Amino acid sequence: MPSVSTPPSFLENTFRKIYPQDNEWRTRAQEHLGTLTMPYWALGDVLDLAVDLAGITRSLHPPVARKKVVVMVGDHGIAAENVTLYPAEVTTQMVYNIVRGGAGISVLARQAGADICVVDVGAKDDFADLVQRGAVLAKKIGRGTANMLHGPAMSRTHAVMAVEAGIEVANALAPEVDVFATGEMGVANTTPSTAISAVITGRPVAELTGRGAGIDDAQLQHKIQVIEQIVARNQPDATDALDVLAKVGGFEIGAIAGLILGAAANRKPVLVDGFISTAGALIAYTLEPFVRDYIICAHASVEPGHAALFERLKRKPLLQLNMRLGEGTGSALAMPIVDAAVAILTQMATFTEAQVSTAKQAQSPLA
Amino acid sequence: MPSVSTPPSFLENTFRKIYPQDNEWRTRAQEHLGTLTMPYWALGDVLDLAVDLAGITRSLHPPVARKKVVVMVGDHGIAAENVTLYPAEVTTQMVYNIVRGGAGISVLARQAGADICVVDVGAKDDFADLVQRGAVLAKKIGRGTANMLHGPAMSRTHAVMAVEAGIEVANALAPEVDVFATGEMGVANTTPSTAISAVITGRPVAELTGRGAGIDDAQLQHKIQVIEQIVARNQPDATDALDVLAKVGGFEIGAIAGLILGAAANRKPVLVDGFISTAGALIAYTLEPFVRDYIICAHASVEPGHAALFERLKRKPLLQLNMRLGEGTGSALAMPIVDAAVAILTQMATFTEAQVSTAKQAQSPLA
Repeated sequence: MPSVSTPPSFLENTFRKIYPQDNEWRTRAQEHLGTLTMPYWALGDVLDLAVDLAGITRSLHPPVARKKVVVMVGDHGIAAENVTLYPAEVTTQMVYNIVRGGAGISVLARQAGADICVVDVGAKDDFADLVQRGAVLAKKIGRGTANMLHGPAMSRTHAVMAVEAGIEVANALAPEVDVFATGEMGVANTTPSTAISAVITGRPVAELTGRGAGIDDAQLQHKIQVIEQIVARNQPDATDALDVLAKVGGFEIGAIAGLILGAAANRKPVLVDGFISTAGALIAYTLEPFVRDYIICAHASVEPGHAALFERLKRKPLLQLNMRLGEGTGSALAMPIVDAAVAILTQMATFTEAQVSTAKQAQSPLA
Repeated sequence: MPSVSTPPSFLENTFRKIYPQDNEWRTRAQEHLGTLTMPYWALGDVLDLAVDLAGITRSLHPPVARKKVVVMVGDHGIAAENVTLYPAEVTTQMVYNIVRGGAGISVLARQAGADICVVDVGAKDDFADLVQRGAVLAKKIGRGTANMLHGPAMSRTHAVMAVEAGIEVANALAPEVDVFATGEMGVANTTPSTAISAVITGRPVAELTGRGAGIDDAQLQHKIQVIEQIVARNQPDATDALDVLAKVGGFEIGAIAGLILGAAANRKPVLVDGFISTAGALIAYTLEPFVRDYIICAHASVEPGHAALFERLKRKPLLQLNMRLGEGTGSALAMPIVDAAVAILTQMATFTEAQVSTAKQAQSPLA
């Protein structure tokens, strides 16, 4: 009797489209960069980035002009547990601020020549007016997560939907975007991000927990206890990213994971911002490790858990500027380095073209 | 009997124009940045930079649009001692490459929207054709330094002239430049830079010497020995920057020091590039410590001596990208961060403007 196979899910179909970077294009880029008029690999990380961009886009002229910061928005039931300095309505207020052009990400995206797309995946507010005029994309899964101190943040079904929402956004935008960048807005979202990090890396909560928007010592101790209780209460399975996302995650974190998966499936580089976005990247990476090949880590946040995430992803951030704002601001600041990497790859002269002498043969100076 | 006083020299007149950053403008910038819609100081180093720019320019709208990378060119007698991989004619070849737009600094300056000014202060070549068409500015003091293994690199008079040349360039360009950036081209110039660093910081040569354009282990040991011999032979006075420059420096390094002094005297920020430029900054700083207030350290090179220079200058570099190209490439890559700092200072909304709730009063969460 022939077996009746279930058609692959949307998630599975996305995973099927994610291949590693193309090694042939990486090699071509490496070889070309080695002929340029500078000591070998003298632009260091900028050249590594150029090779990645060639490997991602399968081109020695990687298109990077059209950049989009996708700001995923969600609220968090855990905000009720006094883990953050800011009242929950700040999520809504900041979305309006972003749309009006006054937020940090508004200013820095404009400066970098990038567009912003704000996506509501899980805010309490519906932003009806903003959705109507196209300033916010409505992909809402729920009005904030449940308080994960008392049970899972969301159902597994909703976790899948959050990731799918991110993939859908990436797929919809892909024809008009060369470089994706993750951003987020959601009061209290360092708490789920820390919980995800602790579960997936296996490191102690106390080692990974930071001050988020600026809590003091007593509040930090409280936040650590809350996160330890969240993990103990929910017992997420570290090998099952959807279980982790459902139990101790957030809607916007799932959507960030989806955006990254979607960018990779569309062979577009994706700049990953700060601690929350990197937690999203860790969910994506746990679902499909080859997604790593499409991630450019934009900056190292001051959140102490961030370094553990880079270690897990085996990726090094481009910038270290003692930032802790989120929103996608680190991604926006790293964009000129992406442009610079492509400019070097495509515009610099070779030794032959410029008639510059190459290095002398190595010889013992004392011989 | 009244004393007949000598009129102040050009150098002294320049020092007289160098004041610290204006604290009142720094405070105004700090206060304004504290009202913007983000957790306090959440953009870290970018905000520190914005405060510096306000203090340097005496403005809450620091002008930064017009940027100029000044590439100082010089040759080095010490190149005869096998301290570098590249033949000495590469200095000339690279100047042509820079002017034609094919060098690393050509590409990255263009990318950053900056102009380049190439200045011959001490090359062997005269670049007659390039000088004639205005592509190279002729401020030549000598055709390469003397071999400092056998005596001083230049006379004290020529050291003063090299610094003055840099000041003159800064003064001439100041009306059309908002942000200066240092750059350099000169085969073997990590050797004098290392000698300067060792003398002024008092650290051992072996600790500060790096591979420059890429020498191997045996060549590195040789380079260390050569630099130790240079210092032992010339016995520069660490407290007398002109003595250090004359005995173990280079024409382009003196001109970089002058450019930095001139930028400060004109109250313009100056991005200081890699190891050679920072050695020039150390000369400038030793001559007039307040020059420090105008220096923005662009990036940390892989040269091991660079960190010691930052420590001495008490300045932290913006970028760490494992680069070792010089030319001004680090300065060019840091320029978008300067633009970003000003954009944040001038364009971001305050909590009041955006009607965003501020942080809750700090309170013990367990109370």
